[in-house]
Amino acid sequence: MTPIPNLNIVPFVSVDNMMKLILKIGIEKFLTDLAAYVEDDFLRWESFDKTARVAAHSIDGVIELMPASDHSLYAFKYVNGHPKNTREGRQTVTAFGLLADVSNGYPTLLSEMTILTALRTAATSAVAAKYLAPKNAHTMAIIGNGAQSEFQAMAFKAMLGIKNLRLYDVDPAATKKCTANLKKFGFDITPCGSVEEAMHGVQIVTTATADKQCATILSDNLVGAGLHINAIGGDCPGKTELHRDILLRSDIFVEYPPQTRIEGEIQQLPEDHPVQELWQVIAGQAQGRKSAGQITLFDSVGFAIEDFSALRYVRDQVRQTPFFEELDMLADPDDPRDLFGMILRAA
Amino acid sequence: MTPIPNLNIVPFVSVDNMMKLILKIGIEKFLTDLAAYVEDDFLRWESFDKTARVAAHSIDGVIELMPASDHSLYAFKYVNGHPKNTREGRQTVTAFGLLADVSNGYPTLLSEMTILTALRTAATSAVAAKYLAPKNAHTMAIIGNGAQSEFQAMAFKAMLGIKNLRLYDVDPAATKKCTANLKKFGFDITPCGSVEEAMHGVQIVTTATADKQCATILSDNLVGAGLHINAIGGDCPGKTELHRDILLRSDIFVEYPPQTRIEGEIQQLPEDHPVQELWQVIAGQAQGRKSAGQITLFDSVGFAIEDFSALRYVRDQVRQTPFFEELDMLADPDDPRDLFGMILRAA
Repeated sequence: MTPIPNLNIVPFVSVDNMMKLILKIGIEKFLTDLAAYVEDDFLRWESFDKTARVAAHSIDGVIELMPASDHSLYAFKYVNGHPKNTREGRQTVTAFGLLADVSNGYPTLLSEMTILTALRTAATSAVAAKYLAPKNAHTMAIIGNGAQSEFQAMAFKAMLGIKNLRLYDVDPAATKKCTANLKKFGFDITPCGSVEEAMHGVQIVTTATADKQCATILSDNLVGAGLHINAIGGDCPGKTELHRDILLRSDIFVEYPPQTRIEGEIQQLPEDHPVQELWQVIAGQAQGRKSAGQITLFDSVGFAIEDFSALRYVRDQVRQTPFFEELDMLADPDDPRDLFGMILRAA
Repeated sequence: MTPIPNLNIVPFVSVDNMMKLILKIGIEKFLTDLAAYVEDDFLRWESFDKTARVAAHSIDGVIELMPASDHSLYAFKYVNGHPKNTREGRQTVTAFGLLADVSNGYPTLLSEMTILTALRTAATSAVAAKYLAPKNAHTMAIIGNGAQSEFQAMAFKAMLGIKNLRLYDVDPAATKKCTANLKKFGFDITPCGSVEEAMHGVQIVTTATADKQCATILSDNLVGAGLHINAIGGDCPGKTELHRDILLRSDIFVEYPPQTRIEGEIQQLPEDHPVQELWQVIAGQAQGRKSAGQITLFDSVGFAIEDFSALRYVRDQVRQTPFFEELDMLADPDDPRDLFGMILRAA
């Protein structure tokens, strides 16, 4: 038996260390590199164990566990969604995640994922847009300027070169915050007074609102030929952002159909409405954008494999840095059968 | 909005702190108090959201997530089971768990659960035996003297006054370890050379072996009238310990039938074989032991509500101690919509 040192230890990336890691790498490089990990894992989509998330619903929100495994690594994310939280100074969504070794079940990384989820959502949106947005797109509308908006802007700039942003939020303070946060990154930003105004002359629209009802953020008449719609906010049962007529005119791309049919915009459509799985486009098994006039829709709800990719990326990056703590999380008696003796000896 | 201090912090109980907490409280008191929490939660069984565990199986083992919620608190446990691990100096089973507030989804406790699972398993066994074992039981056989054995002995001593133990393991070194660990707790211990010898004159038998195959640890001829069988080791598909004929002669008590039918001893029986849910016995809705000659079997596989109880107990106890660390696990920007700005300001 070869002794393995520190079997009890699990590396932990705190919120503070995650921010330090992001700043060290640089936000745009972090997003681009993370997107490469997401694309890598989408390429080998069929080798993953996939399950729809395990959700515990309550009156105020939902708590979910999202596991995924590629038979070598196992990951899961804990994530909540409680829209009323912001009224109490809390985040609507908080998350943390874990990576483990499938061969022995030992956790190998614990990480905050509130920030990391925002990054992986934006990176995945940009990966989808790479295959679906019209060529030479230069201007994006962002409807909903909350916590996710800047991450989307940065990912689309880093990966698609989108520099012109048209921002709208029902709360002008949100647009102001988003504009201020992005100002030093070289965008040309136009704050807008309405959705109509924001949609003027854009090739891409990102909808990222936070209401927990079926809402019509985007009405049918605002969606012209050739648009790519990156729909982020419709991500749970009863929460949608797009008018149904838009869906009927679009070619719809999704992450994992069994989950998106329940949580995405397509919950408004019959269960057999045709959709295209994004991984097949990335793998070259299906076509992305086919024509300049086509309306493409990425109906994003967020899938466990993206969290798997994100944790894998952080594990690979954080190793070479001091940005993690060592958690004494796993009992490691000298003789594995002597757990009780270990307690006695601790006295 | 009332500012809530330290929204980013989740208390964490490490392995070291768990051992300190147990030693401070005392192992027997810890087991007895924990059993009261388990009994409390079994009494309100119907108010829980229950799901069979979410398992990711691989060639070498399994990784499971076990969630449970009572609509006020949410708990889940991460646990692996890898029988080959001991050959590499690792634990077969490691675990950690989390408690969260259902109303806002924020985690309120992260804890090691390798040790805690051993304690809650033993406490639950003793709760079952309180209702099922023959009155005035004084002697217990323990077949399988691995990591769980001493915890079982301590729980049965603390709660049922069992002081005479007859120990057997295929590996005499395990029996020796168990005997040595228990010697200072006032037991009368008889190490035995065979299962037959261990079963001599006992009123209770605990089977806690670790093989991952269908084994016959206990054969039919060894089970006499009036015995209570506490079957711990048969706890996953393909892993059983008792001869099928024993099951047919026993009244069988289980935690959560949908899970036990897959994982417990009763996987050997037809799906409609009658079993009694333990919570109904505790709640007075069904009878436990009915006669002196009856054979009772607690077909234990371990259920998420027991982990819920254990985490709840640790949360209540650890508060008044220094035995926890503060983990910076939840992103907490001043403005919940300004996650991106928080990263920028960290620079």
